Amino acid sequence: MTMFVLIFSVGLAGLIAAFLLSRQVLSADTGTPEMQSVALAIKQGAGAFLKRQNTTIAGIVVALALLMYLLYALQGNTVTGLRTVGAFVLGAFLSALAGYLGMATAVRANLRTAAGALTSVDRALRLALRGGAVAGFLVVALSLLGVTGLFLLFGGYGNPQEVPLQLVGFGFGASLVALFAQLGGGIYTKAADVGADLVGKVEAGIPEDDLRNPAVVADLVGDNVGDCAGRGADLFESSVAEALGAMIIGITMYGIFGLGGVIFALVAHALGLIASIIGVLSVRVHGDEDPMKALNRGFYITAVLALVGFAAASRWLLSSPDFPKAWLLFLACGAIGLATSIAFLFLTQYYTSHRFRPVKSIVEASRTGAATNIITGFSVALENTAAPVIVVGAALLSSYWIGGLTEIAGGNLFGTAIATMGMLSTVGYVLAMDTFGPITDNAGGIVEMSNATEAVRKTTDRLDAVGNTTKALTKGYAVGSAALAAFLLFSAYLEAADLTQIDLAKPVVFVGAMLGAMLVFLFSSLAIRAVGKGAYYIINDVRAQFKENPGIMAGTSKPNYARCVDIATRGALKQMVLPGIIAVAVPTLVGILLGKEAVGATLMVGTIAGVLLALVLNNGGGAWDNAKKFIETGAYGGKGSDVHKAAVVGDTVGDPFKDTAGPSLHVLIKLLSTLTLVLLPLFTLLHK
Amino acid sequence: MTMFVLIFSVGLAGLIAAFLLSRQVLSADTGTPEMQSVALAIKQGAGAFLKRQNTTIAGIVVALALLMYLLYALQGNTVTGLRTVGAFVLGAFLSALAGYLGMATAVRANLRTAAGALTSVDRALRLALRGGAVAGFLVVALSLLGVTGLFLLFGGYGNPQEVPLQLVGFGFGASLVALFAQLGGGIYTKAADVGADLVGKVEAGIPEDDLRNPAVVADLVGDNVGDCAGRGADLFESSVAEALGAMIIGITMYGIFGLGGVIFALVAHALGLIASIIGVLSVRVHGDEDPMKALNRGFYITAVLALVGFAAASRWLLSSPDFPKAWLLFLACGAIGLATSIAFLFLTQYYTSHRFRPVKSIVEASRTGAATNIITGFSVALENTAAPVIVVGAALLSSYWIGGLTEIAGGNLFGTAIATMGMLSTVGYVLAMDTFGPITDNAGGIVEMSNATEAVRKTTDRLDAVGNTTKALTKGYAVGSAALAAFLLFSAYLEAADLTQIDLAKPVVFVGAMLGAMLVFLFSSLAIRAVGKGAYYIINDVRAQFKENPGIMAGTSKPNYARCVDIATRGALKQMVLPGIIAVAVPTLVGILLGKEAVGATLMVGTIAGVLLALVLNNGGGAWDNAKKFIETGAYGGKGSDVHKAAVVGDTVGDPFKDTAGPSLHVLIKLLSTLTLVLLPLFTLLHK
Repeated sequence: MTMFVLIFSVGLAGLIAAFLLSRQVLSADTGTPEMQSVALAIKQGAGAFLKRQNTTIAGIVVALALLMYLLYALQGNTVTGLRTVGAFVLGAFLSALAGYLGMATAVRANLRTAAGALTSVDRALRLALRGGAVAGFLVVALSLLGVTGLFLLFGGYGNPQEVPLQLVGFGFGASLVALFAQLGGGIYTKAADVGADLVGKVEAGIPEDDLRNPAVVADLVGDNVGDCAGRGADLFESSVAEALGAMIIGITMYGIFGLGGVIFALVAHALGLIASIIGVLSVRVHGDEDPMKALNRGFYITAVLALVGFAAASRWLLSSPDFPKAWLLFLACGAIGLATSIAFLFLTQYYTSHRFRPVKSIVEASRTGAATNIITGFSVALENTAAPVIVVGAALLSSYWIGGLTEIAGGNLFGTAIATMGMLSTVGYVLAMDTFGPITDNAGGIVEMSNATEAVRKTTDRLDAVGNTTKALTKGYAVGSAALAAFLLFSAYLEAADLTQIDLAKPVVFVGAMLGAMLVFLFSSLAIRAVGKGAYYIINDVRAQFKENPGIMAGTSKPNYARCVDIATRGALKQMVLPGIIAVAVPTLVGILLGKEAVGATLMVGTIAGVLLALVLNNGGGAWDNAKKFIETGAYGGKGSDVHKAAVVGDTVGDPFKDTAGPSLHVLIKLLSTLTLVLLPLFTLLHK
Repeated sequence: MTMFVLIFSVGLAGLIAAFLLSRQVLSADTGTPEMQSVALAIKQGAGAFLKRQNTTIAGIVVALALLMYLLYALQGNTVTGLRTVGAFVLGAFLSALAGYLGMATAVRANLRTAAGALTSVDRALRLALRGGAVAGFLVVALSLLGVTGLFLLFGGYGNPQEVPLQLVGFGFGASLVALFAQLGGGIYTKAADVGADLVGKVEAGIPEDDLRNPAVVADLVGDNVGDCAGRGADLFESSVAEALGAMIIGITMYGIFGLGGVIFALVAHALGLIASIIGVLSVRVHGDEDPMKALNRGFYITAVLALVGFAAASRWLLSSPDFPKAWLLFLACGAIGLATSIAFLFLTQYYTSHRFRPVKSIVEASRTGAATNIITGFSVALENTAAPVIVVGAALLSSYWIGGLTEIAGGNLFGTAIATMGMLSTVGYVLAMDTFGPITDNAGGIVEMSNATEAVRKTTDRLDAVGNTTKALTKGYAVGSAALAAFLLFSAYLEAADLTQIDLAKPVVFVGAMLGAMLVFLFSSLAIRAVGKGAYYIINDVRAQFKENPGIMAGTSKPNYARCVDIATRGALKQMVLPGIIAVAVPTLVGILLGKEAVGATLMVGTIAGVLLALVLNNGGGAWDNAKKFIETGAYGGKGSDVHKAAVVGDTVGDPFKDTAGPSLHVLIKLLSTLTLVLLPLFTLLHK
């Protein structure tokens, strides 16, 4: 019982912390009237997008809920059906709620950060980070409360061995919302970005973030709906998937550790949330230091505290007189997971920061033109899959091995589950860093558009650069955690499907595996293409506005930002339908036509291909981005030079890679796992 | 015995046909003295490259042969060791020989084709195709004679159930030579192309194929060493891999069909070679028709004859009184394979020809600049994986199912083997079409550089355009056949390794699978990067030549073509080392560290990732190429317009994709299979 009291207390504490931080941010100074008017437009645009998106998603969720219920009811499992469907709806609702509340704070924190930049870097940074932390804490707290609440509601306290599998609907709901949030948000943000650039910079010859461009607000809205709401849903799903996978694996520990073994993941999440809260509150910039250093310090504080929490939880819940050393070994597995998250942060930095060989080689290649910039960037992108795969592989095998040293039956698999928990224990802090990105990006835009002084711009530019780094790091973290969480769900799938193997040597399984990898490639193609199509809507509207109202370019009348935002919203939501359908249809069809073992291979090999392609797209895009940014600091002629023009091509190519297709793949990976788990009764029904 | 008489007769007939065709081509008119001097430079350059490359490869082969022998000898298997090593050396030698002789003809046929263009399209086309057919027939005949000869030498006539597995060394030898031939040739051809363009067109402002550019001969040599020698080795290996895989699977049929079941693949190859010879001889251009039509007609004639031959062979060798319908069902499997090859040709055309939506969308996107050209092209490249995967999946499952209808134990797997034979039965003709590409390309260069008339140029331009299409089609065919042949070798691996499953649900196997996919990405990264590095050597030499001898640009003295060729050769061979080592080291290390089931997953998932990425790289590159070519016909402003400049960026990016990394991946796929088979004793030794 103490465990549940702890979990609920921490969950509530997380909510309260989020509430207090948002109060604190909201009470900060809101700057000049010009700033306020820009910020208002962003807030309204983001709100309009989320409202429309959530309406669309709600329709899909209701339709799927009915279908799922039918599927279960037809087999006479009305109780399981009701539970699965109820969990599904709740998962979808909480994911959308976390995204909504987090973004609502972010689109207010941007203005306060801009105003804070009038004072000092430290003040602006803390406002941005705390604004971002609201999203981070809400995600962790709501996922924790949702999973734990359902667990108890379904009678998990008395019957912990039966209940975890009934929660997969919750994970599927979270996955589905995440898919559409990330896809829709990702398409929106890059369609607005590319559209605004093409029609503004290229056609009309006005600079970026120029108030005369009707698409400029849509561009700033995009950062919020993509990076904040989208990634929030992504990591909400990772947390849920990890907790579910770990609980299902934890059932095998019930005989030894009792309930504690089953709900260890929830306790670990709770302690990680506390560590994240302390970590966020500890961050401050000393004098003139690099703001990234301050954020890194906060991360390390969080990591150390999470490890201490892990040690306490292991000692408490995983102690057994028969296996006295088990808790120490499991603690080592948790440390492996934490180390993996740190390794991912380092590797992402290595491949996307201008200080290291990969980005330098892209800068160098830009001297001979756009083609060599692209070739080199693509080569870097392909190369950057190697080290993360080795790290994930080493983490899986070493935690499996150490878990096996406990000599508990099933201890090896539980070891990998604990490593995943270790990786995800810092998720609250990481999400705060991530949402820091769009807030500082927006603050920069607000400052730019409100005629602030050069000194203020410098402050927001510095923070914006840090925000770009944190966004890239979070994506690296998200891929790594998705890979590990998906691995846990494989075990859950095997368990639930009564399979002892996924035998690639069977032709039908091999074909399922091929189709899984193919799904990843096709989905990415459609996501990338959707950006181009979405951008057309915006280009056409901006052209129309310039034509209808010549006063806009003259600067005598204001463009209709809201109309452009609305058109971008409708375009993005329309374009997310096809990739969304493919993502759901391919695994469903494989399961129906080829059976549950084949769809297991779809899931596993789709995950492998998805992790690799996501790394290519995320970090390739990040490397191109930073190569351009480095040239803009003055290298090889700086802005406007031929070298810069070549680098801009790479940067534009990387945009839909790193902000649309790549992040959507993280979500697809987990959707594959939760979808196949939920549809398992159907596949079983059709194949004997 | 009749079977072997047939096989040897056909093999000899193939050699004789190749000899007669080369006589015929060589006796044709050799054109003007200017043409001859250009052709001589190409011939010498190609010869120098192949000599140096084969010397390098010979060193590697000898070193590996010693290591392999040691490996077997240490386990006391001296006889198996000698056989495996002997087969390895022979496979490597025959592959290199086929490449050498085929290319020797190609670099002579180019001049005759150029001279033939002075007369008519028909004459030039037939000279080019027959010149190309020499390579095609040699590849099929030598692979057939090599495998059959070794089979008999090792006592396969009396003991057909033991011998096939002893031939895997032959496949590994072929794989290894193919890897280096395709990598070295692919790096050479694109380094020369990119280097010549960057330093000639961009820096010096002289047109393509301008005699003043010292790298221009290296560029023409490149087409021969990449497309002719490289792809020849690739398909030599496919033929061998397919024959070996099918023979090993055929052992299970021994009880029912006797020796005929085991060596059915060899008979099918022999009949396919006859069909290809007739197909090549039948080709002629009627009046003013599109030359591609004439080539397509020849392909369909070959396909129909191959099917007839298949029917005869099935009736003859796969008839059994107990299973009267079996031969018809197996014939259906063969037809599925033939249909698959035709489907691949169509799909490749759909994705790479300007007449269809994909290339049109790239052309359209070029209007908004290089970035949108790249984004759209990449989206097309990712999309084009979907249909081929579905086709291969359908071919595998349907032939497996039909083979199972025979009710013979193991008939299902034998069905997939027969489908693969069906796909490869037209390989001789396809290779002739492929080598047609560099011959016509070279003929165009020779005509361009020898001041021929406009009419002659038009003729060679038309053929060159057809040659580009046939090269793209062959790559599609090579991917499809590599996928099927690899699948056969999986079964051989399982059989040889005494494994009944490759269970992805085991962590160690899953990690092996991840590493397989990662290898494919890393290898591609290194292959693409090698082109950039190789191009630097050429750029530096051309700059130096311009500086040392100002008469070159003035047109008063000739550049030193040979020096540039030599530098390009050394550069390419140096750059192929790292990706070559990675290709061999990763599966070896996985096998040593994680064991034989994990390396099985490396092999299978590496194959899936390899097929998908090869499709992305080959057809993406082809689509970019043809988008540029379409604009050059005058669309959207034609040559020199901004749209064209954008399309040139895509074309340049696609070059190392489609001519270096993509084709090298086909080879890597098969190398994975043969390497793991050969090293199996080592893996078994280390893991109990």
